[in-house]
Amino acid sequence: MSYTGDDNRMNAEDVDVSDIYAEDGSVRSDYLMHVGAAIADRDLLYLRQHVARLHASEMGDLLEAIQADQRRALVSLLGNDFDLSALTEVDEAIRLDIVEHLPNDQIAAALGEMDSDDAVYILEDLDQEDQEEILAKLPFTERVRLRRSLDYPESTAGRRMQTEFVAVPPFWTVGQTIDYMRDDSELPDSFTQIFVIDPTFRLLGAVDLDRILRTKRSVKIETIMRETNHPVPAEMDQEEAAQLFEQYDLLSAAVVDENNRLVGVLTIDDVVDVIQEEAEEDLMRLGGVGDEELSDSIASTSRSRVPWLMVNLFTAFLSATVISLFDASIQQIVALAILMPTVAGMGGNAGSQTMTVTVRALATRNLDIHNAWRIVRREAGVGLLNGMLFGVLVGCVAGVWFQDINIAGIIAAAMLINMTAAALAGILIPLLLDRFGADPAVSSAVFVTAVTDMTGFSAFLGLATWWFHIGG
Amino acid sequence: MSYTGDDNRMNAEDVDVSDIYAEDGSVRSDYLMHVGAAIADRDLLYLRQHVARLHASEMGDLLEAIQADQRRALVSLLGNDFDLSALTEVDEAIRLDIVEHLPNDQIAAALGEMDSDDAVYILEDLDQEDQEEILAKLPFTERVRLRRSLDYPESTAGRRMQTEFVAVPPFWTVGQTIDYMRDDSELPDSFTQIFVIDPTFRLLGAVDLDRILRTKRSVKIETIMRETNHPVPAEMDQEEAAQLFEQYDLLSAAVVDENNRLVGVLTIDDVVDVIQEEAEEDLMRLGGVGDEELSDSIASTSRSRVPWLMVNLFTAFLSATVISLFDASIQQIVALAILMPTVAGMGGNAGSQTMTVTVRALATRNLDIHNAWRIVRREAGVGLLNGMLFGVLVGCVAGVWFQDINIAGIIAAAMLINMTAAALAGILIPLLLDRFGADPAVSSAVFVTAVTDMTGFSAFLGLATWWFHIGG
Repeated sequence: MSYTGDDNRMNAEDVDVSDIYAEDGSVRSDYLMHVGAAIADRDLLYLRQHVARLHASEMGDLLEAIQADQRRALVSLLGNDFDLSALTEVDEAIRLDIVEHLPNDQIAAALGEMDSDDAVYILEDLDQEDQEEILAKLPFTERVRLRRSLDYPESTAGRRMQTEFVAVPPFWTVGQTIDYMRDDSELPDSFTQIFVIDPTFRLLGAVDLDRILRTKRSVKIETIMRETNHPVPAEMDQEEAAQLFEQYDLLSAAVVDENNRLVGVLTIDDVVDVIQEEAEEDLMRLGGVGDEELSDSIASTSRSRVPWLMVNLFTAFLSATVISLFDASIQQIVALAILMPTVAGMGGNAGSQTMTVTVRALATRNLDIHNAWRIVRREAGVGLLNGMLFGVLVGCVAGVWFQDINIAGIIAAAMLINMTAAALAGILIPLLLDRFGADPAVSSAVFVTAVTDMTGFSAFLGLATWWFHIGG
Repeated sequence: MSYTGDDNRMNAEDVDVSDIYAEDGSVRSDYLMHVGAAIADRDLLYLRQHVARLHASEMGDLLEAIQADQRRALVSLLGNDFDLSALTEVDEAIRLDIVEHLPNDQIAAALGEMDSDDAVYILEDLDQEDQEEILAKLPFTERVRLRRSLDYPESTAGRRMQTEFVAVPPFWTVGQTIDYMRDDSELPDSFTQIFVIDPTFRLLGAVDLDRILRTKRSVKIETIMRETNHPVPAEMDQEEAAQLFEQYDLLSAAVVDENNRLVGVLTIDDVVDVIQEEAEEDLMRLGGVGDEELSDSIASTSRSRVPWLMVNLFTAFLSATVISLFDASIQQIVALAILMPTVAGMGGNAGSQTMTVTVRALATRNLDIHNAWRIVRREAGVGLLNGMLFGVLVGCVAGVWFQDINIAGIIAAAMLINMTAAALAGILIPLLLDRFGADPAVSSAVFVTAVTDMTGFSAFLGLATWWFHIGG
């Protein structure tokens, strides 16, 4: 017994991440060297033993770690030993590159073996022509299933769903159901619940497997099925579906068409990916980057980042115009030019703090009409408080630096004004964008910076001009 | 049959989010009004029927949507009908407020009913004293279990795990196992796999429930168990554990102590929360905010945001010092003061784009030693390309604006320099912070802005001073 224990633990470690991964989570360099050598020597034995057996996600990491030419060589060397589901784990660019170098026959054969959701994931990126050619090579039922998924718009539950599932009539007993599962070879690779349907495939309910295992064989399914299993309409946006999973801690959910007919099942592992993507999206949008991937080229990356920079350039020139209104003051008191970026910059930082909190709260639906007003008041309070604090602080430093009490008072007031404006902009701009159906993560940053820059410059330079009676 | 169908669909909708939620995902206002009225009238019937039955997460949203006094009133009105697991779905501040207003007896009674991971989630926030008092009221086994979880450091797998699980010896048959599950009443509320252990509780393997259901009763468990089920050490950081779940699409994983003894099970629903938190953390850190919650007060929010502003203030004064070196130039050519924020600002935007991509890629482990050098080269290329583009653009505008070809050339060169510097800072700073074990999300922004501001000002003002032979 204890021997078996040790033995098993060793096996467990064989596939443990510590195996092909180094401490920092990257693929171990010596492993990469061995693989590279094996590819160069066309050492099929090594590749079959130490590469072909990798978990799909490990294979994905390997493919991303090696060079493009090695990649293609590896895939063609492995031939049918290459598990295409690894392609669901790599960047789109890499996926397309590999698929384009694979014969459609091999792709079709591989897709036939796969869960439909993975197959769709690979198919959807291909151009119409290749798609049709590959689909044509698939057995009828497979083809119909995949077509149906592909017919649903991108990023809907229907597109993400798996069309393999177990469904039984309500009048079956637990015993019948278990016997059916023991005999049927067409079952999905893994499942956590079985669905209950009527003769027209309309969804009646679901039963978790543990429930079945706890129930006597004689009991009828309809007596133990849950009716409340949050069926997901196939057209529902994947993000919405993900929220259902999070809210009700679902492991899988039935996907139904407009007639409540069961068409597939959405599983938590797909939903986890969706959650990741959505969170990543907000982060990227706030940073002013779109859907770019590490494998993108210089040209395409540069292109995708230009629009945001362009908008920022426009607002930058607006602030420059604001400054130019006070050129006389700057010429007389150069300290103003030296200090004005501090006023604008601190406002920008305070604004981005509030904006970040607001955007995230909106995304996680923690901020809504019920608490919006309270949060606005809170942020305004925080802005005032920190505005006073940093106003005094900056005032003192500036006063000492330029030995001028007037400068000290002016910059202190300007800081207070700008940091309060920053707080209000930081929460009101995302709220408004959200109200008008725009994604607050995308454009909030630009507007907030515009407000804090222009308020900062005009408040500081304006107050100075007025106080020193310049130009007036 | 078809009637049952309709009936069930109606039931399904009863608990569907569309029920207590409005279109935008917030709790419906009319529902809140009814609940508020019921609380005011102490209408227990309504509360038991329309509130007590809510799903824990719906109850959580309700609690967050109503006022503090209503909250306490509602909880005390519901008494033992109030499902404490709703507290795992609300802000920490709200959770503490409610728990403090509940008698420890009621808490203890409720915790006894809960899955241990939820119970721990509620206990861990309480002060030592209350914790002990409540634990003392729990039955021995419960107490030991919860103590063990609480003994593991925060944000480890051991703290998050559920201590209820099904474990059987390897020599049992599938039939024995099923019969055991039918008879044992102590089973966890829901589970997707059973574990196989030796007499000393050492983990030998696991079997998914669907596997059991597909297998004949006579088959021995050891012949169908997976040995490769990625056991999670109890001390493993929850983020690492979450990565295991993502990588291998796990639904649940065994948590083992240092002797490979099975101590609990980590389930995907907890992992989903972890993934959410981690993604949110990066977003917040990049925005310069710490672990603050919407329910925090003005004072505590302000306090938590001051440190980051303080660091930024320091760098702001550094840039101010840089500017002050060129005060003579600014006095002679005020256009420099008007344009210098544009050079610095555009660099800041470009830098934050690169930084965002880098931080995210590091967090998702897509950026490692194998591709770091390639990405650095790519970002440098993007910086040069966009630097030239916007250099020319800004140069033209500035030249026309101030009717001065020299200004145009100087600002164009400065833009090119600063946007290239921004790209390098945007990727190298996070990479270095990561190398030295610091969280790149926390401090990258400050350093990057410091670099882009100082480079921007010194490049632009320096070039101008040199070109126009000022002060020299």
